[in-house]
Amino acid sequence: MRDIAAAADLSAANLYHYFDGKNALLYYCQDRALDRMLAAVESARRSSGAAPERLRAVFIAHLQTLLDEIEGASAHLQIDSLPPSMRTAVVRKRDRYEHALRRIIVEGIAAGELVDMDPAIAARAMLGALNWTVTWFRPEGRDSASLVADVISRFLVRGIAARTPAMRRALSVVKT
Amino acid sequence: MRDIAAAADLSAANLYHYFDGKNALLYYCQDRALDRMLAAVESARRSSGAAPERLRAVFIAHLQTLLDEIEGASAHLQIDSLPPSMRTAVVRKRDRYEHALRRIIVEGIAAGELVDMDPAIAARAMLGALNWTVTWFRPEGRDSASLVADVISRFLVRGIAARTPAMRRALSVVKT
Repeated sequence: MRDIAAAADLSAANLYHYFDGKNALLYYCQDRALDRMLAAVESARRSSGAAPERLRAVFIAHLQTLLDEIEGASAHLQIDSLPPSMRTAVVRKRDRYEHALRRIIVEGIAAGELVDMDPAIAARAMLGALNWTVTWFRPEGRDSASLVADVISRFLVRGIAARTPAMRRALSVVKT
Repeated sequence: MRDIAAAADLSAANLYHYFDGKNALLYYCQDRALDRMLAAVESARRSSGAAPERLRAVFIAHLQTLLDEIEGASAHLQIDSLPPSMRTAVVRKRDRYEHALRRIIVEGIAAGELVDMDPAIAARAMLGALNWTVTWFRPEGRDSASLVADVISRFLVRGIAARTPAMRRALSVVKT
């Protein structure tokens, strides 16, 4: 609580003035982080890019939210300490986010832009790689948040992206 | 504790007879899981397979340990509840495992079998996708542990494996 107050440039007393206790603040942080992530996944779905580019945009936004901003760091970790009503609201929003990610995968597979693999399991593998960063990333460490976001998002997109059109053209020339 | 006793077909009293309290049992479980995972990563490094096959073997063993066996499920989650000395021992072994995984990646990049990406960040992305499974996998759910292990390991290998020799040969034919 004191850390958060310091980061927000407020006294702890001041912070408590705005939020009704630690849980309300925690809920606010998680809710805001999820709103940012949902906005990114929805904007990716509306974009004209192919599925690999859409996924990449979602992963970058996800990691920026988790690693760059104070409200993100706690978003996926402290759910259990929330009272049931707040917890249910966060879990519901998190499910919406996961479903939106899964829809990008399903549509990408249908369009031949992604390889055919179980979309639910693939989405959870992606979310695991993304969310796990909060357990090891240190802002004062060797790697910047943007380097981490760049490497992980490329790695995850590569895991499911179909061969590029150039590759496929090249292969089809060989076959004929 | 009761769940573990039931799974091990022992009474809780009996279990306490073998272990000096909950922490000793927790430590034993984590230590055994890490031993299995370390054995798998070391056997992969001694194998004659290329880096993608080595990684796949490590990922499958990791997920089997986490999802199939009782001692695995808690391995990566309850470290914080251990007393400092046990915690240090588990963290040290976990670090050994992570370094062994990273060495496979470094050697695979040097051999041209994997694409060049930051080995430390890539290893942590992989570990995140693997470890996160304990937060969502349910033995009674839709997907078996072996399906989850198959999909996730293929996804993660694909994320870093270089084009196959057949692909590269095909492309070089086109170029000439």
